[in-house]
Amino acid sequence: MAANTFGEIFRLTTFGESHGKGIGLIIDGCPAGIEINENFIQSELDRRKPGQSKIVTQRKEDESFIIQSGVFDGLSTGTPISIFIPNTDQKSKDYSHIENIFRPSHADYTYQAKYGIRDHAGGGRSSARETAARVAAGAIAKTILKNLGVQIIAFVSQVGNIKLDENIEIHIDEIENNIVRCPDAATAQQMIDLIMQVKKEGDTIGGKVSCIITGCPVGLGAPVFDKLHADLGKSMLSINAVKGFEYGSGFASVAMRGSQHNDAFAQENGKVVTKTNYSGGIQGGISNGMPINFNVAFKPVATIVSGQQTVDIAGNEAIAEGKGRHDPCVVPRAVPIVEAMAALVLVDHFLRNKTVKS
Amino acid sequence: MAANTFGEIFRLTTFGESHGKGIGLIIDGCPAGIEINENFIQSELDRRKPGQSKIVTQRKEDESFIIQSGVFDGLSTGTPISIFIPNTDQKSKDYSHIENIFRPSHADYTYQAKYGIRDHAGGGRSSARETAARVAAGAIAKTILKNLGVQIIAFVSQVGNIKLDENIEIHIDEIENNIVRCPDAATAQQMIDLIMQVKKEGDTIGGKVSCIITGCPVGLGAPVFDKLHADLGKSMLSINAVKGFEYGSGFASVAMRGSQHNDAFAQENGKVVTKTNYSGGIQGGISNGMPINFNVAFKPVATIVSGQQTVDIAGNEAIAEGKGRHDPCVVPRAVPIVEAMAALVLVDHFLRNKTVKS
Amino acid sequence: MAANTFGEIFRLTTFGESHGKGIGLIIDGCPAGIEINENFIQSELDRRKPGQSKIVTQRKEDESFIIQSGVFDGLSTGTPISIFIPNTDQKSKDYSHIENIFRPSHADYTYQAKYGIRDHAGGGRSSARETAARVAAGAIAKTILKNLGVQIIAFVSQVGNIKLDENIEIHIDEIENNIVRCPDAATAQQMIDLIMQVKKEGDTIGGKVSCIITGCPVGLGAPVFDKLHADLGKSMLSINAVKGFEYGSGFASVAMRGSQHNDAFAQENGKVVTKTNYSGGIQGGISNGMPINFNVAFKPVATIVSGQQTVDIAGNEAIAEGKGRHDPCVVPRAVPIVEAMAALVLVDHFLRNKTVKS
Amino acid sequence: MAANTFGEIFRLTTFGESHGKGIGLIIDGCPAGIEINENFIQSELDRRKPGQSKIVTQRKEDESFIIQSGVFDGLSTGTPISIFIPNTDQKSKDYSHIENIFRPSHADYTYQAKYGIRDHAGGGRSSARETAARVAAGAIAKTILKNLGVQIIAFVSQVGNIKLDENIEIHIDEIENNIVRCPDAATAQQMIDLIMQVKKEGDTIGGKVSCIITGCPVGLGAPVFDKLHADLGKSMLSINAVKGFEYGSGFASVAMRGSQHNDAFAQENGKVVTKTNYSGGIQGGISNGMPINFNVAFKPVATIVSGQQTVDIAGNEAIAEGKGRHDPCVVPRAVPIVEAMAALVLVDHFLRNKTVKS
Repeated sequence: MAANTFGEIFRLTTFGESHGKGIGLIIDGCPAGIEINENFIQSELDRRKPGQSKIVTQRKEDESFIIQSGVFDGLSTGTPISIFIPNTDQKSKDYSHIENIFRPSHADYTYQAKYGIRDHAGGGRSSARETAARVAAGAIAKTILKNLGVQIIAFVSQVGNIKLDENIEIHIDEIENNIVRCPDAATAQQMIDLIMQVKKEGDTIGGKVSCIITGCPVGLGAPVFDKLHADLGKSMLSINAVKGFEYGSGFASVAMRGSQHNDAFAQENGKVVTKTNYSGGIQGGISNGMPINFNVAFKPVATIVSGQQTVDIAGNEAIAEGKGRHDPCVVPRAVPIVEAMAALVLVDHFLRNKTVKS
Repeated sequence: MAANTFGEIFRLTTFGESHGKGIGLIIDGCPAGIEINENFIQSELDRRKPGQSKIVTQRKEDESFIIQSGVFDGLSTGTPISIFIPNTDQKSKDYSHIENIFRPSHADYTYQAKYGIRDHAGGGRSSARETAARVAAGAIAKTILKNLGVQIIAFVSQVGNIKLDENIEIHIDEIENNIVRCPDAATAQQMIDLIMQVKKEGDTIGGKVSCIITGCPVGLGAPVFDKLHADLGKSMLSINAVKGFEYGSGFASVAMRGSQHNDAFAQENGKVVTKTNYSGGIQGGISNGMPINFNVAFKPVATIVSGQQTVDIAGNEAIAEGKGRHDPCVVPRAVPIVEAMAALVLVDHFLRNKTVKS
Repeated sequence: MAANTFGEIFRLTTFGESHGKGIGLIIDGCPAGIEINENFIQSELDRRKPGQSKIVTQRKEDESFIIQSGVFDGLSTGTPISIFIPNTDQKSKDYSHIENIFRPSHADYTYQAKYGIRDHAGGGRSSARETAARVAAGAIAKTILKNLGVQIIAFVSQVGNIKLDENIEIHIDEIENNIVRCPDAATAQQMIDLIMQVKKEGDTIGGKVSCIITGCPVGLGAPVFDKLHADLGKSMLSINAVKGFEYGSGFASVAMRGSQHNDAFAQENGKVVTKTNYSGGIQGGISNGMPINFNVAFKPVATIVSGQQTVDIAGNEAIAEGKGRHDPCVVPRAVPIVEAMAALVLVDHFLRNKTVKS
Repeated sequence: MAANTFGEIFRLTTFGESHGKGIGLIIDGCPAGIEINENFIQSELDRRKPGQSKIVTQRKEDESFIIQSGVFDGLSTGTPISIFIPNTDQKSKDYSHIENIFRPSHADYTYQAKYGIRDHAGGGRSSARETAARVAAGAIAKTILKNLGVQIIAFVSQVGNIKLDENIEIHIDEIENNIVRCPDAATAQQMIDLIMQVKKEGDTIGGKVSCIITGCPVGLGAPVFDKLHADLGKSMLSINAVKGFEYGSGFASVAMRGSQHNDAFAQENGKVVTKTNYSGGIQGGISNGMPINFNVAFKPVATIVSGQQTVDIAGNEAIAEGKGRHDPCVVPRAVPIVEAMAALVLVDHFLRNKTVKS
């Protein structure tokens, strides 16, 4: 059922487990002639990498990769692009303590129930390490979008109760200036302090990532089931730990009136624009040329230090002991993943849109 | 690109425009031997029907339907089930006033830009009338789920600022007792009063629908891209006017700690359960047997009485005049649509799950 | 599993049974702005229609149709095009004699075994009447191809042992001049005589349809699994009664040498051509601009007059009695079906090809 | 467009070029709990391997492989199985002579025209080396089928004009006893002699592979477009050098009468069987439990020793010089590929069939 494939024309398939030989991906449907820039792919992977700062997991996962096919003289050839990211430290860990224990709010129990077997080491296929494959693919999607003038910027807008002021101007350049990836330096510092405090307590905390897409052509998205925001929503909800998605006015629209919410059309330099943007750049499921914006809610990471009540594989009550290094808060590393998934959705709909007129 | 098709094994394809010959659907992949109960399909359509109460649009759309194929002696045969819902009053309306005008926050502009042509009458394909096809298909999906012991209950949990108290016990029987479909009679009355007030002002208002699914088998959903909540989210975001989706702890998880959010496992009558349910019945993208719950945000309907600033097809500024009868608030009629889409997702994943073990 | 859907971008879904309300189809993915000519669709349906000559079945099936959606002012809008062909005489037939009997070499037994239920009347879904839906869809595909300069011509090249001389020049204009649709008048007459003889004997006979496609752009088809000839082959093998497919040199290539079979490239008027065309216009699965040609083998129709040994639904031996009017030879009416399926494959690959270059 | 993916539930995606880092594959949708036997995969790859006898290419391609994911304790886990087959000698070859030349009846010209770029070394993606990935995947499919009692046996039935006598009894055990893989020792010797003669002349010759599948459950295949023989046909036509496919009575059915061709049903040991098997084990697109049999026509390999007239990338006339070692006849090595593709089709339809009854 293509459960490990995403997209219709620009199709990403990922494979691999946290502690197997490695993880990898195939892109089938990348147009020929796209520059495949290995440095850019690496720089995107480095943004997701563990160990990049004091507020993320201190595990060392090497994220170097090998392009195995589909590229000739630095250009895509139209054939499948395969990228492999070897696991370098998979032998060193001991996961026998979770072999027969279902960690609370992890995928251990449901995988075991569904398949009758699971690769338990490091969460196996359910590990967020899988998202490295998405980021690598997203880098290629971003290259295509850059050629079209599309820019995708994600950032952390909330950690716990520390929120980015909604009325503040977004300083794009600031995002990568701080380790939490918040576009406001002062708020960033508060978030970092909170995460360090949570980490010290052996606990974890949730967060929110926001994304703004500018330069998107008018006409991307399909009218009924594959609305652009429905595909963006699915792509975000498919990221580990995501609990919610809203775009444009989002959940706040519930309390609004139509007279207030409707975005009046106007002409500006020969282009149709809207005076407000509660639509979030998408109307009837199709991009209207205004900035696309959405928010993604991430729950607190399930791995915590203290022991937790649970059951084992035989159904007996047991204690899941905390062990290992983990992220106290997932959102700083989630920023490039959100961007990657958004890029995959946009490129796919850009290609799909090439076939709708005669 | 199958833009009008939803699902992998149990596949719904819809067609039709608001003011054409009618709307309809094909279900391909319905298992053979399912009882196709026309009365039940009709009763579900009637829950979505315009004109059913004073708080919804007063348009009269006949929702009677014809089963054209796939059923023999009252049972599905495994071949495509086609259902047609004729439009009965399509000739009577005059839509020339919007032929060349883009109504704000409707799909007029984006359809025209994408396709270079559009059926403008009543919004054409972008009309919410398309959702009648989903409800009819959902009735068949519900029949399959009922045989499995799965129950899907949706209800209105917010209209404007009137919220259902989260701590209140949900009275399922109350939902269909009031015209707004809120499970608490007192809150329902407040919502109805607000909608009548908004209607009187020629305005519209947003709302929220919540859904609870009980009896779902363990193991539905796929680990990576087709997580159960990702597919539920896409299905909901594909409904007209939806701006957001959250499941389990949802956006509230952003402010929570892992130690608080994790759902401890326990054994209960030989079954694995969780003591809390912040996971919303889904872990690692796979159902864990606990109730699945989610919320869907609906924006205020874009059609309002007062004239609005806009542009015409030539790009000139113009006034979109309000006209026609419309819903002051979409959520009462959205309840059966939410249930239908949830049913389609669950049946599809139930069938997909039949192939994962050897 | 989309078993009733064909194509990736230009997607045809068919539905309906031989003796139900009617048969029909949805095309999802037709580009917007295509002229939908009802007269042309009807003329194509008439070429497939029963009762059109003395050598085909004398049943009267009305093939008039209704376009239910997707067309506005005579042009496709990019939304699903739905066409319904009502069954007009479904009530008049008595099929109780086959309700519990499996007719030899029909689909009765396999449908019953697969689904546990079947609509037996007239073969239900397995009836060749389903191909009317393909022909209607093919007419729209042909319109798109005509705009591109592509011409698809099929004809009867063999009936029983009467073969069209391979060295004869194909007179395209002759094809529709005779009721067997053979491009050579003299051979046509022999075929007609043979079919009339077979009919008189209450028997049936096989035949072969050949197809030539000219004007196909270079570059259609995909390199690995979706080779152009693989998709053409599948499309032909999906037609009722087809037993074989070959393209270019076909089965004759088995006895050839590479030095003889290779098609030397040359330049002609600035265009790359091949001096011979054993490749059948397709190399590496991709069209090379030369004429595409293929042959399709049809078995003799399974319905015959004499009683046949068989088993009933309980597994007991029984006699299947011949009854009803049927085609003594299927190929004259198969010609427009072959063309329709070829057109569907080409349009789909034409649209797919729009996305392969950056 | 999933052009490099085959199957609906048991999905194979292949990647890689002849002279890149290697070739590989992902199987998505393999049921959990299947024994993944590396020795068996290797033995299947060895049957396809170059250099295995004097009548195949003398190139040395190492076919050792690495399972990168999806297997735990020797069993499939339900997650994607990724297998990589490194190219070991890719650096040693010089292909500059074909960089700008289109070899006759190869894919050089069409790839260049379609994509505007191509990896020319050894044919890049169009190389038959891609089929090694199919054979590895086919080995896993065969394991699943073996558990079900299904046996797939392919063999060479014709080389040039040397044909296996159709009335001869097939000696399955003989097939792997001779290097041409013909089930009759005497005919095998004639075939080998012919191939050696052709090789000596620097030429190539076509051949035919036949396949017999026994033990197939009743009910596999879908009624309309995805008929079992249509999917088998597509799978075979997707193999390099294939020009035709026929099943059951095949092209010979063209000259047959219905009274002769119909397969009478009978009861045998409580099972429904047919007295003859012109249907080739498939009726109405669905397996009926009788042996499935089909033939596949392979053209002579396009690579020959003598220089050939062609054009270069600029469109100028040129000579393609023969060079390198190649197969004089492809069919001995095609036998395991035919089996692998048949196995993929059957497993996919076996899994699809799990969802058709309620």
